[in-house]
This record gives sequence, C-alpha cells and structure tokens, in this order.
Amino acid sequence: MKAKVKVTLKTGVLDPQGKAIEHTLSALGFGGVSGVRQGKYIELELAEADEADAHAAVKAMCEKLLANTVIENYDIELEPL
Amino acid sequence: MKAKVKVTLKTGVLDPQGKAIEHTLSALGFGGVSGVRQGKYIELELAEADEADAHAAVKAMCEKLLANTVIENYDIELEPL
Repeated sequence: MKAKVKVTLKTGVLDPQGKAIEHTLSALGFGGVSGVRQGKYIELELAEADEADAHAAVKAMCEKLLANTVIENYDIELEPL
Repeated sequence: MKAKVKVTLKTGVLDPQGKAIEHTLSALGFGGVSGVRQGKYIELELAEADEADAHAAVKAMCEKLLANTVIENYDIELEPL
C-alpha cells in the first residue's frame, strides 16, 4: 500500500512559519489571504497489502515518530501501490 | 475558498529528510517501509469565492513563493469555506 500522511498543527498552536508565509504573500501583492498554516506531508510505501493492517502500522508510526501528538494532528490516506 | 496545497520533491531529487525517516522507522521496528518522501502541506483561506479565480491565485502563489518549481511539484485542492 502507499500511504499519504498529513501532519498539521492543532488549532490554537502558534504557527510562525504560516505567519511568515502570510506576510510574504501579502507583501507580494496577494490580498485576501488569511489563516495560513504549514504542516508536513509524508509519502511512504508499505510492503503490507491489507488495508486495515497498513492503517494500523501507519497510525503507530505517526504516534511514535511522524507527529508530535501534543501539538499536531495527523491524517492518513491509503491507496494501492 | 479554502486551499490545501501539497508541495513535494520531484522524482529523482534526493530527499535526506525522507531517508532519515525511513532509517528511523526501520530502527523502531517498522519493517517493509520504503520510498519515504517528505514534503510540505500548506492550508490557507482566500477571500476569493470563485473557484477558477481562486485556483489561478493559488497557482501564482505556488510559482512565486510556496514551491521551488525547479525541484518541487505542487498540488492544489480547493473547497468552500
């Protein structure tokens, strides 16, 4: 299976990178942009072919390594290779 | 509109962050993981309500700021606020 994981900051957690992007977009002349948040996007390939097992494995990877669950949420999408 | 932008390294571009994640996952006991690639995920809100105009604006933002188009691809998703 191929897994696509989005790791985003939880609501309320300060996001200085997002703020920097927002200010720079405004300075470049892009108006009407707000609420910019930057997160991580991770793609990986799993030998596991069963969707439920693959989801459980990727969830464990997120909890242990990919996301800091104190301040970040994660979202897992799976698709066949 | 709300825009969700994924910025990923082009195929063939070395990804040391992805390699580091892959090695660490293996060291943590997650086997059968390969092809790990890390990219960026950016969410933003646009005052623009028309989908075609919003897409054009976000595309321009990607070309000018959000992605380095020499080595990165970007993917734009739009949804109503």
